[in-house]
Amino acid sequence: MNLHGRDMISLRGLTDEELLHIFDTADEFEPVARGEKHSDVLKGKVVGALFFEPSTRTRLSFESATQRLGGGTLGFAEARTSSVAKGETLADTIRTVEKYCDTIVLRHPKMGAARLAAKMAEIPIINAGDGAGHHPTQTLLDLYTIRKVSGKIEGINLGLVGDLKYGRTVHSLAYAISRFTSRIFLISPPSLKIPREIVGDLSDMGVKVIENSNLDKVLPQLDVLYVTRIQKERFPDPAEYSKVKGTYRIDLETLEEAKSDLQVLHPLPRVDEIAPEVDSSPYGRYFDQVFYGVVVRMALLSLILG
Amino acid sequence: MNLHGRDMISLRGLTDEELLHIFDTADEFEPVARGEKHSDVLKGKVVGALFFEPSTRTRLSFESATQRLGGGTLGFAEARTSSVAKGETLADTIRTVEKYCDTIVLRHPKMGAARLAAKMAEIPIINAGDGAGHHPTQTLLDLYTIRKVSGKIEGINLGLVGDLKYGRTVHSLAYAISRFTSRIFLISPPSLKIPREIVGDLSDMGVKVIENSNLDKVLPQLDVLYVTRIQKERFPDPAEYSKVKGTYRIDLETLEEAKSDLQVLHPLPRVDEIAPEVDSSPYGRYFDQVFYGVVVRMALLSLILG
Amino acid sequence: MNLHGRDMISLRGLTDEELLHIFDTADEFEPVARGEKHSDVLKGKVVGALFFEPSTRTRLSFESATQRLGGGTLGFAEARTSSVAKGETLADTIRTVEKYCDTIVLRHPKMGAARLAAKMAEIPIINAGDGAGHHPTQTLLDLYTIRKVSGKIEGINLGLVGDLKYGRTVHSLAYAISRFTSRIFLISPPSLKIPREIVGDLSDMGVKVIENSNLDKVLPQLDVLYVTRIQKERFPDPAEYSKVKGTYRIDLETLEEAKSDLQVLHPLPRVDEIAPEVDSSPYGRYFDQVFYGVVVRMALLSLILG
Repeated sequence: MNLHGRDMISLRGLTDEELLHIFDTADEFEPVARGEKHSDVLKGKVVGALFFEPSTRTRLSFESATQRLGGGTLGFAEARTSSVAKGETLADTIRTVEKYCDTIVLRHPKMGAARLAAKMAEIPIINAGDGAGHHPTQTLLDLYTIRKVSGKIEGINLGLVGDLKYGRTVHSLAYAISRFTSRIFLISPPSLKIPREIVGDLSDMGVKVIENSNLDKVLPQLDVLYVTRIQKERFPDPAEYSKVKGTYRIDLETLEEAKSDLQVLHPLPRVDEIAPEVDSSPYGRYFDQVFYGVVVRMALLSLILG
Repeated sequence: MNLHGRDMISLRGLTDEELLHIFDTADEFEPVARGEKHSDVLKGKVVGALFFEPSTRTRLSFESATQRLGGGTLGFAEARTSSVAKGETLADTIRTVEKYCDTIVLRHPKMGAARLAAKMAEIPIINAGDGAGHHPTQTLLDLYTIRKVSGKIEGINLGLVGDLKYGRTVHSLAYAISRFTSRIFLISPPSLKIPREIVGDLSDMGVKVIENSNLDKVLPQLDVLYVTRIQKERFPDPAEYSKVKGTYRIDLETLEEAKSDLQVLHPLPRVDEIAPEVDSSPYGRYFDQVFYGVVVRMALLSLILG
Repeated sequence: MNLHGRDMISLRGLTDEELLHIFDTADEFEPVARGEKHSDVLKGKVVGALFFEPSTRTRLSFESATQRLGGGTLGFAEARTSSVAKGETLADTIRTVEKYCDTIVLRHPKMGAARLAAKMAEIPIINAGDGAGHHPTQTLLDLYTIRKVSGKIEGINLGLVGDLKYGRTVHSLAYAISRFTSRIFLISPPSLKIPREIVGDLSDMGVKVIENSNLDKVLPQLDVLYVTRIQKERFPDPAEYSKVKGTYRIDLETLEEAKSDLQVLHPLPRVDEIAPEVDSSPYGRYFDQVFYGVVVRMALLSLILG
């Protein structure tokens, strides 16, 4: 089990043991991520962050992870600023920027961009989202957060709620958690159900998929509720959107029937899927999730570059 | 007297002793700010710089201060680049970004933004300007510069010239210097006089306020002349603007009647309030003021995070 | 021979010995640039990168060089973001930013900007391109790359191909290589020949200038072929552009008559002057050139600031 020099395009290439090894490594970095301990694991190393579309959250999380470990970062926050955008091919950009750094964190609007980059580059590529493709460090942090807030990952009853049709995040998380559990709960309006092929894949993995459009029915069984946004644009009829939106909004009343130790997660940013009153309740863990994102990225960077 | 973990929203919350302690600490950091000495005071620490409106000067000054002390910086230089700007509330942005760093330096166009951020955040917030509100590190650097260039701060005869009606910088400085002096000189056109309530406050603090629209009359008594810009937009009549502008432009001729050790300051950027010939004269200290801004921010960061 | 504290506005001010000393220093930094070795040569130092026009490649190269040596960087990637752009003079910007750092790397659209900056600043200024003026670190990296890929620089048969009329890069390189060689090959369409005064200067330096519009005729004699882009805008007649463009496109067929150890360079980004098939051939060295750019900038920064 050795992640040194490996690309991170999707989680498919990682064994369960490798995933757990990343998580164990992450545990050790927590005090460093809090600024309580120094680390020089990435001293002298440079992480290139090429964001061809803006994603402040992901970019800052990687920058924090790098700096906490004593490394440096460079790159751009959007393609517009990049002279690289002047008609140069992605391949040439990658082969140029790899001379400036030890790994490239790539965010790109086009699916497949990260895989292409990995093919061109001699240094490891970390996919930070490629359009409708993958965003493996988001899934890693989701899984890691589940393990942290629930104390374990095996056998967790996870419910995914919101737009399960178009949400890349929930698709990846559904596949990933299915390595460790035997049931998964999917809550969405009928028009935004998860694609049938994913249900088929999960069943093939031996996971029982429980689909329901009524959150209240399912809620009492859940250990973790993962909430995502439902985008207005997905609905041809605004009236239908309003109805659905109301149904899946999480507030303290919604959570009355939940287990007392239910953990509510959200990839953020939220709009109004979760009421602010949940933030300071014992249920709301989405800001902790942000922190675990830094920790798990520290682990990843240290294992790939260390 | 302990600034560790404290927010810095306005100077009101600081005692005189705390102010002087910051200045004494700043004195020690001077050789580090010049790159002559290393410091690892902020090693492993990360400073988040969230600039919801651009302020290159303030941002670079904080970045320099952080890097000179061995810390790292991350953030954004304007809200446009920030995905954070996609409808997320300031509260959520703050609670997210605080997971990436040890303190947040916040620049925001809306008054009260920094105080709100401080209420939401677990980590200390440093206000780097909130619209018509405060900009405490500007005032700190103004005071510190006065102490450096005059050798003392107590009993200094400070003159503020320019737009005293709308200038946030001069209001804050007037309050702050009044802790240490018994007289203050305010020079402005009648239409841009300092608000009456500020005059009342200063009088209540036991300070004699000398207002005059004629700089020449007052100049010979001053130890420090703090010049600010008069913005054309403030005048309904362009002719009146031109007249006023000419009156308060500082050049070597203007300064002929000044004390030989008068020190001229300016928050910068200047347009033409001060003639370039003053720059290399013994009077011009505004570029030193820039340097003292780095030093005093180093002191602040080290005391808050150290 | 001491570069400490020196400005780097153009290569004219450097003796041949100084050039070679920079290259020798660069050789030592190679493992550091690859992230294989740590260096603290710039520890506690801050490099200001002021890019008044975007140049991602140059900016990232300097940032990489700085970070590999343990230093910090700050600045802006384009003037738009810079509050500095609000009508402040370049002189004032420089005298402000020099308080934040130990050297300023300046990219500016106006010729002469770097020289003006150097006149105003107390700290050393490194010209990273000033419009139609100079870009000395590009020329340094071109020369250094020639030395690296050919094993020597003296007596090399260098061919410059493309737009030799407007290309600042090739003009500077022609002058610089002429210090070390006795022949130079210039290949361009008749309408884009190098200016006559440059030919005169090179002849005065004792260099034989061989001009030819036919690359095939000259190619077999070359040790290094330096390719540059021909911009469509230069041609009044699009048909003429297409013809020329085809003629100078380098692919493996073009190179059949070349020496087996010909080295092909390009300042990048390329559009289609060089076919991708050349990249992985022994001829294509332009991505190595990118790497040597970091190394030579490390050498320069360490010698100026160290």
